[in-house]
Parts: sequence; C-alpha cells; structure tokens
Amino acid sequence: MSSAEINKNEVDIVIGALNADLTQFLNCWRPFFSGFHLIIVKDPELKEELNIPEGFDVDVYSKADMEKIVGASNATMFSGYSCRYFGYLVSKKKYIVSIDDDCVPAKDPKGVLVDAVSQHVTNLENPATPLFFNTLYDPYCEGADFVRGYPFSLRSGVPCAASCGLWLNLADLDAPTQALKTEQRNTSYVDAVMTVPLKAMLPISGINIAFNRELVGPALVPALRIAGEGKVRWETLEDVWCGMCLKHISDHLGYGVKTGLPYVWRNERGDAVESLRKKWEGMKLMEKSVPFFESLKLPETAVTVEDCVVELAKAVKEQLGSDDPAFTQAADAMVKWVQLWNSVNSSG
Amino acid sequence: MSSAEINKNEVDIVIGALNADLTQFLNCWRPFFSGFHLIIVKDPELKEELNIPEGFDVDVYSKADMEKIVGASNATMFSGYSCRYFGYLVSKKKYIVSIDDDCVPAKDPKGVLVDAVSQHVTNLENPATPLFFNTLYDPYCEGADFVRGYPFSLRSGVPCAASCGLWLNLADLDAPTQALKTEQRNTSYVDAVMTVPLKAMLPISGINIAFNRELVGPALVPALRIAGEGKVRWETLEDVWCGMCLKHISDHLGYGVKTGLPYVWRNERGDAVESLRKKWEGMKLMEKSVPFFESLKLPETAVTVEDCVVELAKAVKEQLGSDDPAFTQAADAMVKWVQLWNSVNSSG
Repeated sequence: MSSAEINKNEVDIVIGALNADLTQFLNCWRPFFSGFHLIIVKDPELKEELNIPEGFDVDVYSKADMEKIVGASNATMFSGYSCRYFGYLVSKKKYIVSIDDDCVPAKDPKGVLVDAVSQHVTNLENPATPLFFNTLYDPYCEGADFVRGYPFSLRSGVPCAASCGLWLNLADLDAPTQALKTEQRNTSYVDAVMTVPLKAMLPISGINIAFNRELVGPALVPALRIAGEGKVRWETLEDVWCGMCLKHISDHLGYGVKTGLPYVWRNERGDAVESLRKKWEGMKLMEKSVPFFESLKLPETAVTVEDCVVELAKAVKEQLGSDDPAFTQAADAMVKWVQLWNSVNSSG
Repeated sequence: MSSAEINKNEVDIVIGALNADLTQFLNCWRPFFSGFHLIIVKDPELKEELNIPEGFDVDVYSKADMEKIVGASNATMFSGYSCRYFGYLVSKKKYIVSIDDDCVPAKDPKGVLVDAVSQHVTNLENPATPLFFNTLYDPYCEGADFVRGYPFSLRSGVPCAASCGLWLNLADLDAPTQALKTEQRNTSYVDAVMTVPLKAMLPISGINIAFNRELVGPALVPALRIAGEGKVRWETLEDVWCGMCLKHISDHLGYGVKTGLPYVWRNERGDAVESLRKKWEGMKLMEKSVPFFESLKLPETAVTVEDCVVELAKAVKEQLGSDDPAFTQAADAMVKWVQLWNSVNSSG
C-alpha cells in the first residue's frame, strides 16, 4: 500500500514531545508525514516553548489543554512519555500512528527511506492471523501466501488491532542491558511482518507503534508508572504494561497484533550507565506481571474494550495490589482512563 | 556457529531418496555435507538403483533393510516421503538434519551459499524462548538481545527441540494454492530465526528440518497418510501432522520449536494442476485436526516422549477416529512407531 492509496483522513500521527526542538525530527519525517494530521502533545513537565517547523497540519496540546479537557488532577497521568496518550484520547481518527521524537526514518537494505506511516496502515488494514502460525510470515504481503497445511477456514484472518514497528541503531533494551552493552547497535533489518499468536505475551514498545483506535482505542492506557521513571525509554515501563493489556484484550475480543516492519532509526538519548545508578523497579514489576497475565481470563461478559479494561483493572487490584503500590495506582489509572475516554469521546 | 565448531559425530543427515539419481543433489551439498555421516533411505517403491557420487560417508537403507529391521508388515509405513522416518529410527546421533532431495543450497542476499547444516545445529544448540515473545527475534544471535520488558526469569530459555527451515523459489504451498498460482515464487529471504510461542500451532514442513533426536526423536512419527498421497510434497500431509504432534509434545514437555533460517533453494517437481484433478483429502483432514490439537491436553502422567505419543494416539482414536479412517490408521501407526522405536533403540 503506497502513501497515495491511504485515506489520510483516517489517520492521526501522534507525537509526544519530550524535546522542545522538533525541527530536525519533523523535517526528517516531512516526506512521510506531509498531508497527514499531526497531534503533538507536549510533556507537561517540559518548560521550553516547542519549536515546530512550517508546513505541517498540526494541533499542539500543552498542559493547559490537558487541564481544560480532563481537569488539573487528571493531567498528571500524562507526564513524560505518557503525554502521547492524551493525543490518543482527543483524536477522532480510525488509525493512530505514534513515533518517539528521537527517531527518524530508517533505510531499508536497498538504501531506500522507509515510509513507516504507510507500512503501519498497511499492517492495520490487512487481516491478522493469530489463530495459527504461518511460517511464511504475513500471508497477505505481495508474493506471500499461506503455507501447506494452514487450515482453509482460518485463512480470512481476524481484524488487526495493532502494528508494532522495530528499531535500527539503538534497539529498545532495558536499563541494565543498555548499560552493560553500551556499544551494541541493532543492524539487523528483518524484512517481515508477522502476527503474534493468540495467548503469546510480548513486551510491546511505544517507540514506533500504530493501532486501530476504533477497535481498541481505550486499551492503550497510561497506567503503570514506576518509581524513578525518567525521560529515557529504558527508565519506563508504561508502554510495556499497556502492551500487555492491549494484547490480552485483543486476544479476548478476537483481534490480532502484528510485529516487524516498519523500522525506524533510533538515535541516542540519555546515559544508560547513569540510569543504572537509580534503583530500577521495572525488573521486579515484570516478574510479577507475567504470571498475572498468563493466568488472567477476562469474563465472557466483557464484550467491549472499556469492559475489558475495567475488568483487567479489577483483577490487577485484587491479585497484584498487595505486591507493589505501583499496581494499585495502575489499576486506579485504568478505571479513570475509561471514564475519561467515555467522557471525551461522547462529548465530541 | 561455523561448520568447524560443530561436533560432526553428533549429527546425522537423513535424506529420503524419492529420485534415483542423487548426483546433482549431493554434489551441490558437498561443501556442507562433507565430514558428516549421511543416512540415505530409498523410497521402497522406487525401483531403480540409487546413483550416489563418491566421497560421502553414507549408509544406504533400502526396502530389504526395512524388512529386516522392522519386519515386512511394518515396512509399508516408510513408503514415499515417509521413508526418511526410517533414517530417524536407525540413527544413533543427537541431532538429525533432513532435507528433501529436490532442494539445493540457497544463496543469502549477499550471494553467499547458505550452510543449512550449521544453521540448523546452531538453532538446536541455543535455547528457545517459547514462554514470551521477543520482538527482536532470536535473542541468542550475535548482535541481538532481549527487548525491554522481557522478564529476566525467562531469559535462560528452554531446550530447543526442532529447527524448521524455509524455502526460496518454490515455497511449500498446498495443491490448490500451487495450482492456482503456478507462477508464484518465493523471493523473500527473511534473515531471522524465532521461537514459535507456546501453544501456537503451526504446519511444520519436512522439506528442510532438524531436530534433537535425544530430546524428541519418537515424536517425529510417520502416521497420517492421505488417500491418493503422491510423490510431490503438495500431495502429502504426513509432515504437517507429524509437526503438530511434535509441537504439542514439545510444549507439553517444556521444549521449544524454532522457525526461520536456514533457507534452501527448492526446485520444481511435479505438476500441481495435475494434482488438482485428484481429490485432495488434506484440506478436510486439517479442518478436523486443528480443533482437536487446540483442545488437546496431554495428561501430566505423560512424562516421556513415548508416553506422549501413545496418549496422543489414544486421543486421536477416540476423538477423530469416527471422522475419517485416515485418523484411525494414524493412531495405530503412532502406537506401532513407539514400539518400533523402543525395540530398535534398545537393541542397539
């Protein structure tokens, strides 16, 4: 699917601005963002004025807008990397594409710049195949197909809820790994899209992601905030938690999640060794989260995404609440998020 | 892992000979098969003498050997593509690598011939990660790692039971797809190995496969023979059925199955349109098999591979036996196979 074939009115590109100067970032993306509507959400803790080059169709949201739309007490949900969730909340489009502001377009092995927006929308518009694994990768790609033995009754697939892209140069590693392997760079461009099977858990990264907002919008929830969360990705877990919720809810509702293409080129930001001096809470929380999600079964009465998020929050509170206050806070944030989603999206 | 680092005494390369003249096949593979022990099993229905070039360390097994080792009544299990299972039975090695005799080494995108044997052994020697999905593919490859959010307690992985390679040129499609898309060729070299997640079902192909015989040998069982099965891959399902058994048993026993590299180059054989004139049973059988495997739960008392195969056979007979005689025959063959395995492997 080329950029020309995409209905640009169906897509919002949401950028969380953790850096004030977006000039280089947006100029690099100009060939692929042009003609799309951009929602730029400024980290409420960022003091400087944003620097946004000319020529984009963009709405900027700042702390004042957050306070106006969700109230001052709720605006704290959107600090740091979580600011982009505010963009998900106020969008009215079918598809959201969201890319961190320290990423620029990657080059494919032929040296051609990758159009991440078109690739994400292509992933979302084609069905996903979570019910049976196709060894030949995405069967809907040109030149690909279902492998011998793939059941015919499953070849129409299911709707695709989310598309997880990857990263060249600086891969998305956790703080300890990043600190241990400061020189390691991801140079491996794997030219494939695949559906993550039903019930398989994965740590979805928010760096380069797209989703069908109409299908699963409220499942992308800013919830888990770790103590000492910083302004570098390896000090966060909000997107990983959100991704586990999104995957579980997609499984429950019969949607698929894809991973693979598109790649973006991720530049350095922050000092991983410095991060290691902080106590890194993420490790402990993931060890608790995995068995929780593994045994989680949402009730059959949960038939909407909102139902699922509320049921998930209930289970988090009951089963994880006593382990760490971060989980109780996450559960409360999830319930609050559904309330905000309903109120913002019904008033529009 | 380079060829020089592999302990060649731990590997048998098993080739099922459906063609009498193996000259071109073996000469193409000479750079990668040299120094390894080869087991060549001649399709018992093939009348001509095999033509095997000089310079290989090879044992050839024919119909007479089968009758001597397993008895004349059991030798029918090994006709057509199933002849290679006889090689799995008589091998004494830790690893088996098996490649169809219409495949030659593929070239990677840089034009270098792919050493499929080394890649398979590398896949088998490194752990698999079926319990959590790593978006950065095989974390044990050089330059790769676990992505942020991957639980630390799962990073040591589990033993790898099997390595499923892929195919360039002629992909492994079923008869109807192959007949509909006669011109379609697979040109997509995806440079990645990944573990298929726990509980995800996949149609494993026997064209280009390797496995740890010590871990899961008896799970590779020649069982499902479809009416009108021919001498072209798209007229068979034996490997797909065997693969579903293998994956299920690996899941049950805590092992992993990998897919991706290595590629082989698959040449044309047979006329797919001609195949379509036959009634193709495979489609119907897969539609019955999938819900069966999906709901299958092996008892906790099944702690060896042999136990698992016998329990699986019992379930097949009970739940699928009345649907199609091919399933009853498959169940009987599975029980027989375990008996043969025990008898051949204890007498050695």
